[in-house]
Amino acid sequence: MIRDLTDSEARAALPLKWGAVPQGTVPAWVAEMDFAPPPAVTAALTAAVGRGMLGYSCHPGTAQAADLNAAFRGFAERHWGWDVPADSSTPVGDVVTGLRLALDELCPPGPVVVPLPCYPPFRDVVALAGREAAYVGLDPDHDHDDRAAAALDLAAVEQHLEAGARTVLLCHPHNPLGRVAHRAELEALRDLVHAHGARVLVDEVHAPLVLPGQERFVPYLSVDPEAVLVTSHSKTFGTPGLKTAQIVLTDPEETQRLRALPIAANHGHSGLGMVAGAAAWRDSDLWLHALRSRLRVQAEDLRDLLAEHLPQARVRPLEATYLAWLDLRAYGVADPAAVALEHGVRLAPGHDYQPGLEGHVRLNLATSEQRLVQIVTRLAAALT
Amino acid sequence: MIRDLTDSEARAALPLKWGAVPQGTVPAWVAEMDFAPPPAVTAALTAAVGRGMLGYSCHPGTAQAADLNAAFRGFAERHWGWDVPADSSTPVGDVVTGLRLALDELCPPGPVVVPLPCYPPFRDVVALAGREAAYVGLDPDHDHDDRAAAALDLAAVEQHLEAGARTVLLCHPHNPLGRVAHRAELEALRDLVHAHGARVLVDEVHAPLVLPGQERFVPYLSVDPEAVLVTSHSKTFGTPGLKTAQIVLTDPEETQRLRALPIAANHGHSGLGMVAGAAAWRDSDLWLHALRSRLRVQAEDLRDLLAEHLPQARVRPLEATYLAWLDLRAYGVADPAAVALEHGVRLAPGHDYQPGLEGHVRLNLATSEQRLVQIVTRLAAALT
Ligand SMILES: Cc1ncc(COP(=O)(O)O)c(C=O)c1O
Ligand SMILES: Cc1ncc(COP(=O)(O)O)c(C=O)c1O
Repeated sequence: MIRDLTDSEARAALPLKWGAVPQGTVPAWVAEMDFAPPPAVTAALTAAVGRGMLGYSCHPGTAQAADLNAAFRGFAERHWGWDVPADSSTPVGDVVTGLRLALDELCPPGPVVVPLPCYPPFRDVVALAGREAAYVGLDPDHDHDDRAAAALDLAAVEQHLEAGARTVLLCHPHNPLGRVAHRAELEALRDLVHAHGARVLVDEVHAPLVLPGQERFVPYLSVDPEAVLVTSHSKTFGTPGLKTAQIVLTDPEETQRLRALPIAANHGHSGLGMVAGAAAWRDSDLWLHALRSRLRVQAEDLRDLLAEHLPQARVRPLEATYLAWLDLRAYGVADPAAVALEHGVRLAPGHDYQPGLEGHVRLNLATSEQRLVQIVTRLAAALT
Repeated sequence: MIRDLTDSEARAALPLKWGAVPQGTVPAWVAEMDFAPPPAVTAALTAAVGRGMLGYSCHPGTAQAADLNAAFRGFAERHWGWDVPADSSTPVGDVVTGLRLALDELCPPGPVVVPLPCYPPFRDVVALAGREAAYVGLDPDHDHDDRAAAALDLAAVEQHLEAGARTVLLCHPHNPLGRVAHRAELEALRDLVHAHGARVLVDEVHAPLVLPGQERFVPYLSVDPEAVLVTSHSKTFGTPGLKTAQIVLTDPEETQRLRALPIAANHGHSGLGMVAGAAAWRDSDLWLHALRSRLRVQAEDLRDLLAEHLPQARVRPLEATYLAWLDLRAYGVADPAAVALEHGVRLAPGHDYQPGLEGHVRLNLATSEQRLVQIVTRLAAALT
């Protein structure tokens, strides 16, 4: 059910991931999968283009917005047992735009707590919104086989809240750590944040990608209805170029305020993205099931390949996403991604996720098994 | 060659324009046309969806970005005799987002001159960018048959520049006036602006819609290479829901700086929008030719219909766009759009374009002849 793209198919389908690397280089950097999108999504898009649905849909009252809303509610109920309040999703152009809008319009003034390592645009978006970032680090020497050791450092969060931070920007599941916070952790964060009159802004774009064998995903908003959720079908269902994400708020009045903003503040979402989102959330469960099984196999393959070719690499067991965070410091190379690029594989450099951090890379394993072998063997050739 | 959409086709194709009006109401408000998009655009999109081209293209080096660039240059050369510098277009999500980005990153600090009436998001985007707006009004009692009388008031612009404004936000051709500034006017503006160390930010989204019988369109950037141009194929070729516009700069170094911004500052454009843009600029000349002829006929029909049903309406001869600006003050109704809505036609209220202005509406004439008759007769029934 998961169809691998050939190189030339991938080049046509993924202009950034494959277009921004030299011919012959295997791209394992940006978070896109080398798989064909779910058939329901392609079918819905083909039909919409056939109907000429190329006009504005920048109005929360459109049929597309209502559909997206209902489809997301259905997905959350089936997969996470979460009863999402009706009509609580407002379309935005993409996750990053949604985070920016949330910072500008929904989050209390003051510095923003950003746990590190983080998806690099988190830092940019905080700066673009004119906010100060208050970083919380993760010791790179933590025990990689102890999941508690990679938990968010609440004591450090508390210090920032005491110093005036009023927003905590959470990535759940975490990119690049591939970690999923459990309910008790979320509750502890909520209590801490509420005690300081602060608010959590949570990015759950990787939520559908919790791998088989893990605890069921707990949406942060189901634990803390005062938070702001930004999510999208895009990363899971392979449509990030279509530009549609969602801001979800449990307070209907706040949703009304968000929707009452001038159109210039929020008209970046596309009608086709909304059509794709509805088909993804509503009609693609079997495909998603197959995808997660496939990704678990890939993650196991990666561990085996690393054990064989790069035995000193440290990697946490992957709980979610198709992104593995590798500690390669044992090989003594400050910027392994730069060296790997010379050996024909493009990885994401660790210092993009945590400025100043050496010897780490993020590796995208959502590709063919053959390419995964190339990725690891080329990386090994680069480092050894 | 221009195919009118039936009501149900239009409802499927234009979720905002047709979805945000009650059933039975004729929508003549937002700037979208009730015509099928150019065949080359639909074909290119169908092929791209078939290839699964749903991934990111947020990189100026992608084939899609290069194509869009080349196609726009070809269009500008064929239609306006303008030799656009190579590789001078940078994709952005839409025109309004492009204006926002230009204000944030490219325009000198200080208030922004905004001629009134204006496309309403102009005011919003200036406010969102944290800039003060310096308005230049147009006397509603100007002679509607004298095109010079509706020209931009350069003396008023000069006053604002002297008081510290450093950006002039120009809409060329003008929405909602439907007017096209001629070369001498543009040169005078350029000289004035340069004398004050200021910069013009020009929105030319309606440029391909200069109607037959008018002087050839003069791109502002061809007169003033220091300006910032934001444009898109979207309004002309019927694809505003796809999210792709362009910022055009003549200075390659400034383009490099724009493209070097963090991805979070500019990743709102869609790959499909870029594909549509290339097909529009490159492969849709015959369709555009037919469109302009059709729009001229519509504009003449509108004048005839007004003469018959609303003889006291004042309207300028339409030089460009499919948007007519009607002065209905003779009928003594402060908000004609509100009354018209009760009579089954949705127009854009004049006070959205110029706060406080009474008795005006903007009427979108890009629809079937039958609907145009309904629009005018219903408006007449509302006012008389
Ligand atoms: C955590 C996280 N948030 C957001 C995004 C990007 O989403 P978008 O393209 O919708 O802004 C990514 C992409 O990899 C991501 O990993
Ligand atoms: C002058 C002008 N600029 C911009 C736009 C909107 O463009 P976009 O949807 O690409 O932001 C319009 C839409 O009617 C317009 O008339």
